[in-house]
Amino acid sequence: MSFDPDTLVYNADGLIPVIAQDHASGEVLMMAWMNVEAVRRTLDTRRVTYWSRSRQSFWIKGETSGHTQALVNLRVDCDRDCLLALVKQIGPACHTGRRTCFYTDVTEGSEEELMSPMV
Amino acid sequence: MSFDPDTLVYNADGLIPVIAQDHASGEVLMMAWMNVEAVRRTLDTRRVTYWSRSRQSFWIKGETSGHTQALVNLRVDCDRDCLLALVKQIGPACHTGRRTCFYTDVTEGSEEELMSPMV
Repeated sequence: MSFDPDTLVYNADGLIPVIAQDHASGEVLMMAWMNVEAVRRTLDTRRVTYWSRSRQSFWIKGETSGHTQALVNLRVDCDRDCLLALVKQIGPACHTGRRTCFYTDVTEGSEEELMSPMV
Repeated sequence: MSFDPDTLVYNADGLIPVIAQDHASGEVLMMAWMNVEAVRRTLDTRRVTYWSRSRQSFWIKGETSGHTQALVNLRVDCDRDCLLALVKQIGPACHTGRRTCFYTDVTEGSEEELMSPMV
């Protein structure tokens, strides 16, 4: 069946959450948002392209920093309201310079930082 | 630093997205939502507890199906507006009976189902 980005379920702002995962290590790197055109651009260009809610503009990951995300696989979930992007991430995915945005553990009721910035 | 669920960033509906990942295999299983009380209950009980937007009630994963999610680690992202739950998942995480909700690949412009129901 041919895939049509219009068939995804977007929220009231026209956005769908996207989980970016390192295709090789399985590490979850970040979560961000796409609109229908960002989904199209990501599939067409193979460069992961989000919609920045703060800037209200397309955000080609790594365009300014060089820390690009190349699309390896794009998966849709059962409800069609969430995407999983398997990516080749160059350098840090997080704007703090860390490999992943999920660097703080809170399991035991206190916050523990698990890693330092790479750059 | 002590962790206070009230310091997380919730959306207009008082919810935060949560990515559930198999703690051993790294497989991303599902994405769902928690409110502040669901975060507290998850940490207190170590059974992953979401907020069901459709039923408007707490949803202890696997309570009726037996396909429970035991919390191994809970991580907060850099913006404090997304959680990553590393879990021990019994059986399928998806309501369709599949191990993961992300069983449809769309990378090449057509939809390809990657796995069948386990149960």
